[in-house]
Amino acid sequence: MRTTLELGQEIGYANLSMEAVAARAGASKQTIYRRWSSKGALLLDSLLSLNEPLDYPDTGDLAADLRTQIHAAVDLLGAPPYGPLFYALVGEAQHDRRVAASLNERFIAPQQDKTVARLRAARDQGQLSPGFDLDLAMAILSGPLYFRLLITQEPLTHEYVDRVLDALLAGMMPRP
Amino acid sequence: MRTTLELGQEIGYANLSMEAVAARAGASKQTIYRRWSSKGALLLDSLLSLNEPLDYPDTGDLAADLRTQIHAAVDLLGAPPYGPLFYALVGEAQHDRRVAASLNERFIAPQQDKTVARLRAARDQGQLSPGFDLDLAMAILSGPLYFRLLITQEPLTHEYVDRVLDALLAGMMPRP
Repeated sequence: MRTTLELGQEIGYANLSMEAVAARAGASKQTIYRRWSSKGALLLDSLLSLNEPLDYPDTGDLAADLRTQIHAAVDLLGAPPYGPLFYALVGEAQHDRRVAASLNERFIAPQQDKTVARLRAARDQGQLSPGFDLDLAMAILSGPLYFRLLITQEPLTHEYVDRVLDALLAGMMPRP
Repeated sequence: MRTTLELGQEIGYANLSMEAVAARAGASKQTIYRRWSSKGALLLDSLLSLNEPLDYPDTGDLAADLRTQIHAAVDLLGAPPYGPLFYALVGEAQHDRRVAASLNERFIAPQQDKTVARLRAARDQGQLSPGFDLDLAMAILSGPLYFRLLITQEPLTHEYVDRVLDALLAGMMPRP
């Protein structure tokens, strides 16, 4: 996995092949394929070796705590090796359903568990609307980030995610 | 473009090559490349040949009108040829920045203009929070759909987008 990270940074993860990783590691292609069934599987293990799912602080201020966590996520995604590796992985997931399934099970789901736990605590403290649909938390909080990463492909900034958080917290309907 | 749509439906857009399109159309590869610089450019023109940007009705009820428009988008994305073609295009945009730029300019931006116009009318009618950040409209309204399409890869349904809309309209903070 260290070889994958090194080589990916040199030549770009999109250009990385299992053959090239094997050659750099001084291993046979068979050895690599025995451990990782696809390039996507290798990229995912490499990504997960870099970081645990990001924790949310619980200072009792939901908006501040969401902001802290999402800034940390933006900082990770904005720098190598994490960012380029993550984009390459999402790219692989678009044409390899097993990669998509592993990405969800091993990366998205643990992050979702932490998000839902923090939101549930906020609900108990009266800081989250009792009607807010916790099953949608990841889609609503991270969807606008993926839109920017994958569709408009503009840089993710703290300023952008702050504006998104403000809009999501306030909602679109006027408040009395 | 009709050849692209036909062949894509037969063999899958991910497997489509410029060579195969040329062969099926009885044209030379050069002829195809003269008109479309890449597979992504060809897919985008084919997509745009299928549909105009979806209009929003204006019945005076913002929530109902957003629902109508987003259901139409879900129906388009849920069926061939539009759906598979759109996924393939987003896939191409991940490793071809010119495709990403054209997709934004020719597909996302016109849709955004319609969305912002409808939201501005709603604001004038007091149905949209005066503080809602119109520049974020596309990211917030369509981000959760892209999250489901590209990350969890679960089917987009009317039921899902209805729940998303309800959550976005109400916001995460409790209302008095």
